Amino acid sequence: MIIVMTPDHSPEDLNRVIRRIEDLGLKAHISKGEHRTIVGAIGDERVLREIPIESMSGVEKVMPIMSPYKLVSREFKSEDTIIKCNGYSIGNKKIQVIAGPCAVESREMLEEVAKAIRPLGVNFLRGGAFKPRTSPYSFQGLGKQALEYMARVREETGMLVVTELMDPRDAVLVAKYADIIQIGTRNMQNFRLLTEVGNIEKPVLLKRGMSATIKEWLMSAEYIASQGNENIILCERGIRTFETETRNTLDLSAVPVLKRLTHLPVIVDPSHAVGRVDLVPAMAKAAIAAGADGLLIEVHPRPEEALSDGPQSLTPQQFAKLMEELKWVAEAVGREL
Amino acid sequence: MIIVMTPDHSPEDLNRVIRRIEDLGLKAHISKGEHRTIVGAIGDERVLREIPIESMSGVEKVMPIMSPYKLVSREFKSEDTIIKCNGYSIGNKKIQVIAGPCAVESREMLEEVAKAIRPLGVNFLRGGAFKPRTSPYSFQGLGKQALEYMARVREETGMLVVTELMDPRDAVLVAKYADIIQIGTRNMQNFRLLTEVGNIEKPVLLKRGMSATIKEWLMSAEYIASQGNENIILCERGIRTFETETRNTLDLSAVPVLKRLTHLPVIVDPSHAVGRVDLVPAMAKAAIAAGADGLLIEVHPRPEEALSDGPQSLTPQQFAKLMEELKWVAEAVGREL
Amino acid sequence: MIIVMTPDHSPEDLNRVIRRIEDLGLKAHISKGEHRTIVGAIGDERVLREIPIESMSGVEKVMPIMSPYKLVSREFKSEDTIIKCNGYSIGNKKIQVIAGPCAVESREMLEEVAKAIRPLGVNFLRGGAFKPRTSPYSFQGLGKQALEYMARVREETGMLVVTELMDPRDAVLVAKYADIIQIGTRNMQNFRLLTEVGNIEKPVLLKRGMSATIKEWLMSAEYIASQGNENIILCERGIRTFETETRNTLDLSAVPVLKRLTHLPVIVDPSHAVGRVDLVPAMAKAAIAAGADGLLIEVHPRPEEALSDGPQSLTPQQFAKLMEELKWVAEAVGREL
Amino acid sequence: MIIVMTPDHSPEDLNRVIRRIEDLGLKAHISKGEHRTIVGAIGDERVLREIPIESMSGVEKVMPIMSPYKLVSREFKSEDTIIKCNGYSIGNKKIQVIAGPCAVESREMLEEVAKAIRPLGVNFLRGGAFKPRTSPYSFQGLGKQALEYMARVREETGMLVVTELMDPRDAVLVAKYADIIQIGTRNMQNFRLLTEVGNIEKPVLLKRGMSATIKEWLMSAEYIASQGNENIILCERGIRTFETETRNTLDLSAVPVLKRLTHLPVIVDPSHAVGRVDLVPAMAKAAIAAGADGLLIEVHPRPEEALSDGPQSLTPQQFAKLMEELKWVAEAVGREL
Repeated sequence: MIIVMTPDHSPEDLNRVIRRIEDLGLKAHISKGEHRTIVGAIGDERVLREIPIESMSGVEKVMPIMSPYKLVSREFKSEDTIIKCNGYSIGNKKIQVIAGPCAVESREMLEEVAKAIRPLGVNFLRGGAFKPRTSPYSFQGLGKQALEYMARVREETGMLVVTELMDPRDAVLVAKYADIIQIGTRNMQNFRLLTEVGNIEKPVLLKRGMSATIKEWLMSAEYIASQGNENIILCERGIRTFETETRNTLDLSAVPVLKRLTHLPVIVDPSHAVGRVDLVPAMAKAAIAAGADGLLIEVHPRPEEALSDGPQSLTPQQFAKLMEELKWVAEAVGREL
Repeated sequence: MIIVMTPDHSPEDLNRVIRRIEDLGLKAHISKGEHRTIVGAIGDERVLREIPIESMSGVEKVMPIMSPYKLVSREFKSEDTIIKCNGYSIGNKKIQVIAGPCAVESREMLEEVAKAIRPLGVNFLRGGAFKPRTSPYSFQGLGKQALEYMARVREETGMLVVTELMDPRDAVLVAKYADIIQIGTRNMQNFRLLTEVGNIEKPVLLKRGMSATIKEWLMSAEYIASQGNENIILCERGIRTFETETRNTLDLSAVPVLKRLTHLPVIVDPSHAVGRVDLVPAMAKAAIAAGADGLLIEVHPRPEEALSDGPQSLTPQQFAKLMEELKWVAEAVGREL
Repeated sequence: MIIVMTPDHSPEDLNRVIRRIEDLGLKAHISKGEHRTIVGAIGDERVLREIPIESMSGVEKVMPIMSPYKLVSREFKSEDTIIKCNGYSIGNKKIQVIAGPCAVESREMLEEVAKAIRPLGVNFLRGGAFKPRTSPYSFQGLGKQALEYMARVREETGMLVVTELMDPRDAVLVAKYADIIQIGTRNMQNFRLLTEVGNIEKPVLLKRGMSATIKEWLMSAEYIASQGNENIILCERGIRTFETETRNTLDLSAVPVLKRLTHLPVIVDPSHAVGRVDLVPAMAKAAIAAGADGLLIEVHPRPEEALSDGPQSLTPQQFAKLMEELKWVAEAVGREL
Repeated sequence: MIIVMTPDHSPEDLNRVIRRIEDLGLKAHISKGEHRTIVGAIGDERVLREIPIESMSGVEKVMPIMSPYKLVSREFKSEDTIIKCNGYSIGNKKIQVIAGPCAVESREMLEEVAKAIRPLGVNFLRGGAFKPRTSPYSFQGLGKQALEYMARVREETGMLVVTELMDPRDAVLVAKYADIIQIGTRNMQNFRLLTEVGNIEKPVLLKRGMSATIKEWLMSAEYIASQGNENIILCERGIRTFETETRNTLDLSAVPVLKRLTHLPVIVDPSHAVGRVDLVPAMAKAAIAAGADGLLIEVHPRPEEALSDGPQSLTPQQFAKLMEELKWVAEAVGREL
């Protein structure tokens, strides 16, 4: 950590800063320049991060050198993490597509979707049991019943179940049915929920918060990892910007950035990012080209009747066509679908 | 709701849209222009919001006319809501300042702060028992013990307790000790938590989500109100923007916007918004001038030793000076402190 | 255009609105709902846009139905515009890559780059003569001399010249040397400059403003087109967001959005968007997969000596590798490089 | 400047960095930590900023210590700059309000406004002669004629003229008529225009770019100052964010931030920031409370007939009421109106 002193700091100010650093077991390295005196704190700067050095007299600013996360960093573990999940893997050459309806609306519609997409090589079925809806008057999901329907469809088709956990009180229930537990964008910094899934032995799909920096997102992953669960899949799903043509702005550059910073697999959800079915195929292809390890795509048999997210759901026919197109892109970047 | 048809829609497309509207008990009003045909849905458009009309064939876009929230809207209740809280009120002529440390670190420091600020006319003491920290390695709060310290200080000083609830499992516990329950910025769309506090008979201080639009914020208030608890205080605390000189960008125009849209009281937290103690006084004064009903300000006896948010905490001396200055501004806009 | 009246408007308010609409030659269509009265203005709403209807008594809000641009809209011209430029085309099956240094630093370095990239199938050479630099103390470009170097390299290699115009006073000079005139991100709303290039018979490469919505960007294109020059290439180059890992956030969803809204070709500049050479290849591939018609890529023989934008410039070797990879992606989406 | 080396850099990499620093006349100070080696460049780091050190082999990142601007910094000149302008001052105890119509539409309306606001103590009359309009089909201003009308009204009323310069070719003309030359938000990084006004002996009112950081804004001021003109007034006018209730988000915290960083006076334009007349008074008061040295407010005799910005223009009556209210707020913060 670099501590920049104000031009008018006193010798006592400097001494206090040095003492504080040394008291924490780090070494202080002073460098007096023409315009500024700088103190370098040498050692594990993470202990220093907890100390409000900026509040000390004579300190102008503090500049961390190291990333605030550790377990999830590429520096800590250089090889890619491959998530194993009941016979399937996420993070290796094969791109996994997780598809299905936004919400499980009935057993019939879930089966209809599953049967339509299973033959296309889709191994993971998504479906919401508990739905975080902006309006209290909107459909909130079928809850436990939806989980049971998903388990039933798993038996029938062999597809694994990906579903969202919203409330720590449902953790045991959801963990019983899900193969991968999703943490939604609005809960990326619900630290209690992160701690909860950190203690469950199931892979976690961690969506990026709508206005989370990549650093904050990795800190949320660190929360989970710090509890012992390192099976984390990061999912870019668009960030909030001033542009209104799309629901959010899909930040595809997050994919190569994350590949540098972390060993965890990265997937992309184009459906929630753009919010418009006509843009989903282009962005799904771009995600693969950018290096994503997988996709999360909403499919509904009759979008115009969907109880949530209709405007961004592909029909099974549209989805089949997209899977065909994705194959070529995957191959072009040395992957397979 | 206005439904704009595509230029090339078929008569069947139009008929299907009309039928859908009428099936929901609304009336359809068609208006054929030179470039577009438009369908107005007349009646309570909230039922229509749940239907993915945009997914219907021949529909270009859908434009809602009414706000998606109801109970919290000024249209539903025109006079200002004044929150009564054990003898004090929020939302009338008197501006309430809620002050105290970010986190309760010990009983001694809490008492020290309380005794320093109580004589300045501060009726509400803030203090975190459960802290949402970005890093799993940071101080997470003293939990139940902090609540007990706060209750003790309430007895000693008469100050009311404002503290954050992070987890629905702590709702009963926090409700037992708090006079006002705070929902933090990261939980503004934790819908389960909102439902929980909607069922508690205590006022709720609802902070704006870091990237929440004013509309989404009011929808979160509506969640609480829809459960029966209409004692909601909105708290602007800065939004996320590209500017990095301040931690967030304090959106003071939200104050007069909210005064138009809702009957709920609005307060401002300049400390979290700017994240720098040197900017807090200016923004506190500006908040009052903009029409805020109160302030939330962090005060710590020794910011350079704070376990969280040191750089944005005022010392009691700085706070006393600010209170003096605020009096003049409050008077200038016809309020009192 | 839809005009929503306030709940408490008077009959005179409504009459004044109707009269205003009819005075402009449009028809007013009134629709009285349970909660609101709505006036639809039927006819060419563009004339209405210039009138501050929102300022009229009794008006709550105004909602336009049509896009504010015309000539550049897909509705006005449904088939794709293909820009012809001295024997090369932009906007058809072949993806054009425009490459070269940020600034022309000397004749030698320009020739060095050109000779390295020409054999890779690059037909357009970019190079800055006038450089918009954030600091007045930075290298501002070689000006006219740079233009002459570029013209010389065009003669030697057959590559066409793409260079930026910053000042209307340089329009004649730049037009004399350039094959495509670039309008930079900071000048996207320099309306005088837009008017100037609208009157030149050379294709214009219009970069998106750093915080421009897609709608504003198309309005800037409309400025150029309204002067008679419809040879406009749109270039997405990243927008400003809160994320700091990348210089800007590349908004690739703008590509399919634009393909819907306009007939103009769309290219992508990954170099400026990400600002880091290690991310350029991934984003270049993603851009092609998203449907871009071309790329703008910075190449410098020795980035560590570049006078501007070194950190985002590929070496010719890195660029050659990327061109190889791009070929596969282009083919995968039915294009060629 | 601090240069952080990658964990795997070679001794040659480090030597090359050191040599580069020393070649520029600076001293290199090496500090080897447990996780990283750091090089501090001691001396005037501004020369280093022009060198792409990040592109050198073995370099992880570069962290500047000093601000990139100099002449406009508080460090360079500690006392406040007070702009003298034909007998009036901006930047001292007295708050100056610059008011008038968005665009000069006719001589009559300009006189009407001037005569209404002059008796309220307004010394500066704003009015657009050249208007930067998003649409090429909108009213673009009366040009030279508007300037003449403004000069005439100056003679009649003694009010000073503030008007925008959009094009370097109009610099001589505008300088002839204006007392203060405004550079609009869309031209904040029109570096040629900045250079032009840097060479004129008239105060410049520099509006913040819609998506400009405070640092970039000060760099634009530095452009002007570097040409010799240090009479610069900074004007905050709202930044672009995701919030759509207001046209832009007024960043009032920029006022105290700037007061720290620069000696230049800072004023606020609430009209353009919010874009809605009902919010202007609250934000004008907040601006004064936050420490602004002045205000820029749009006033139009009949906003519902305005040729531009009607919805955000106050009537003279509304403006008179606001001036009354502002007096109290100014006094409350030790200023006068």
